[in-house]
Amino acid sequence: MESEVYSKAKAAHDAAYVLATTATDVKNKALLYIAEELINQTDAILAANAEDLARAREKGMAPAMLDRLKLTPERIVSMAEGVRQVSELPDPVGKTLASWTRPNGLAISKVSVPLGVIAIIYESRPNVTVDAAALCLKSGNATVLRGGSESISSNLALAKVIHAGLAKAGINPDVVGLLENTDRALVRELLTLREFIDLAIPRGGAGLIRMVVDTARVPVIETGSGVCHVYVDKEADLDKAVPIIENSKVQRPSTCNSMETLLVHEDVLQPLLDRLVPVMKTDQVELRADAKAQAVAGSDAITATEEDWKTEYNALIMSIKTVASVDEAMDHIRHYSTHHSETIITENKETAERFLKEVDSAAVYVNASTRFTDGFQFGFGAEIGISTQKLHARGPMGLAELVSYKYIIHGQGQIRE
Amino acid sequence: MESEVYSKAKAAHDAAYVLATTATDVKNKALLYIAEELINQTDAILAANAEDLARAREKGMAPAMLDRLKLTPERIVSMAEGVRQVSELPDPVGKTLASWTRPNGLAISKVSVPLGVIAIIYESRPNVTVDAAALCLKSGNATVLRGGSESISSNLALAKVIHAGLAKAGINPDVVGLLENTDRALVRELLTLREFIDLAIPRGGAGLIRMVVDTARVPVIETGSGVCHVYVDKEADLDKAVPIIENSKVQRPSTCNSMETLLVHEDVLQPLLDRLVPVMKTDQVELRADAKAQAVAGSDAITATEEDWKTEYNALIMSIKTVASVDEAMDHIRHYSTHHSETIITENKETAERFLKEVDSAAVYVNASTRFTDGFQFGFGAEIGISTQKLHARGPMGLAELVSYKYIIHGQGQIRE
Repeated sequence: MESEVYSKAKAAHDAAYVLATTATDVKNKALLYIAEELINQTDAILAANAEDLARAREKGMAPAMLDRLKLTPERIVSMAEGVRQVSELPDPVGKTLASWTRPNGLAISKVSVPLGVIAIIYESRPNVTVDAAALCLKSGNATVLRGGSESISSNLALAKVIHAGLAKAGINPDVVGLLENTDRALVRELLTLREFIDLAIPRGGAGLIRMVVDTARVPVIETGSGVCHVYVDKEADLDKAVPIIENSKVQRPSTCNSMETLLVHEDVLQPLLDRLVPVMKTDQVELRADAKAQAVAGSDAITATEEDWKTEYNALIMSIKTVASVDEAMDHIRHYSTHHSETIITENKETAERFLKEVDSAAVYVNASTRFTDGFQFGFGAEIGISTQKLHARGPMGLAELVSYKYIIHGQGQIRE
Repeated sequence: MESEVYSKAKAAHDAAYVLATTATDVKNKALLYIAEELINQTDAILAANAEDLARAREKGMAPAMLDRLKLTPERIVSMAEGVRQVSELPDPVGKTLASWTRPNGLAISKVSVPLGVIAIIYESRPNVTVDAAALCLKSGNATVLRGGSESISSNLALAKVIHAGLAKAGINPDVVGLLENTDRALVRELLTLREFIDLAIPRGGAGLIRMVVDTARVPVIETGSGVCHVYVDKEADLDKAVPIIENSKVQRPSTCNSMETLLVHEDVLQPLLDRLVPVMKTDQVELRADAKAQAVAGSDAITATEEDWKTEYNALIMSIKTVASVDEAMDHIRHYSTHHSETIITENKETAERFLKEVDSAAVYVNASTRFTDGFQFGFGAEIGISTQKLHARGPMGLAELVSYKYIIHGQGQIRE
């Protein structure tokens, strides 16, 4: 007998062919119906979510995790609003990216096309179900969603809403498949189904991403691992530095674009820390510093170890390292960064340009918070994740990153000599 | 002790950082020195190649394979010419692909950057050593080359030439690493070295590509698997159809962009085969036909089996299937194609547009030979392979496909609200 994974992936693959050439207004109608249905079915969604929450509490889930899992009427309104916004974004499919004619008369066009079927592997937050389905739908991609077992009741209720919206617009509901069986062995099957799956995107913690990379035989875009740095240069404006550091660390510490390590030029170590340490204390940030920085921070910092430079805390913890030059800062970044986002604070344009040119991360900033690495902040209008790999897409991925292309060639009987 | 793979991959990774920002004219100088040195060292290269050929003959290598392995003074001149041509192509690195300013004043630029370190896994042809090194160098990528054991002496001689050219231009020779040990276990090590390798590109037969996909934990671009189709529509101009079919099959049958299966609308089966069969007979092409086509071709065709529709012959063999409509032709392609290159022969513009829109292959043609799917034929000036996957790059890959991008953001102290 076919497994659920096989049958849903096959159904998505078979339906993807039609979705790939479905008109923009049909896809937009489906999105609007889904948004409408989310509001109409608020009670049913909350009831399902209550089941997940009850199970999670029984298992002793931590409050922060419970909060990620929890849906409220406001959160459902915000999900619906997100889906409506996706309907208003331009369709990324069918764009002529380039066209030219060869000396032999062949007219070549490079045209954007959907990727096909995208598998999304994610953890507890049920809003990913709706976000991912909406973005894949708008970009003409079918999708197979595999959420966490802890949110299965919520996800099933949301999938029902999505299927109703698709059907009302005349789109085959198979284009969005949600796996009901959350057994781990089925994830392996999904990630090796090269026949039907064109791309896998993991959304979650480092453990999930590592598992997907290790298991997959389909192409993967890795997302969201962020050991990000702020480097305060000797020519920094400390009036900019302190708020940027605070914002990069504190505004939402659980996100991948938050800073983990502060690099400080030794020439400004004392004046910077004199101003920064009290701010961080107020923000309840734990400081882990190298010897020089600790000498300045005193009892407000503990000693950092080699492990700290490698760690994505995702919490109110910050490591501080003193460097003697921008080169030493860039060396540290090259060695320890996950190549997500890095910032230099400096008023020296030449130093800034060197940093921007030489640091090889998805987003490299001068005098701004690392927290701006985000599809919405970049103006993409949507985000499916933040790629930390270099292939296909890098940094925030919106609709434009969910398409591939093909070449269309018009001839008049040309053969190759 | 470090393995050869580890030390060469690490050396390439360490050197890649500098190469990424090396000026265009320095890279071009290195290319011209390599071209010069190839000519100067012709005798040494041919002597090394003679060793490979002697070993291969001893092992009873087939004449076609021996020919792929063999270097001649002319082939060396042509390699050098290829390298010179790469020096004349525009540098794909450092291009501003897009730039915009956000309402909060952040100025965002999307700039092309090298991928990093590219591992190339290939088989007998020693010219790949030079081609791949030249393209990676020009695009600012370091490379680790793993050629076949049968061409190891030739590859070592060519690597020596490449290293001499790099050194003369002041580029660290570590940017091109050639593995001397061709033990298969080391390929596995190379393909799982996520720390140092950004991309693996296999160049060779289906077996090699499958092995790379199965083994790799680094991103892979699959190349070169081609079950390509020509569909002759009921409204085809047979004066175009016959030469296009002949060209697609016969001009160089061992290549991935050659046709394997001919799809024929039943309305033109008789007139097409009446003209085509004698041509194919002269070309010594073996025909494998479905029942309807065989009824027309008679003893000139044998019976095709299900297996034929799936097979990339890479030889003078062609399968023929009769279809009742363009839909049936597209169904067959969807089912059996490797999504490389497909052609429709028709004078009906609507039918052509449907085929071009709905067939999801890297290159889709109307009234032209499938043999044009090639970086040089497309005007890219170079080719590292033909991607048959949808991620990152699709179809012929030249220099533009060997880069990624990063975002550079200029701020004035912005923090996220």
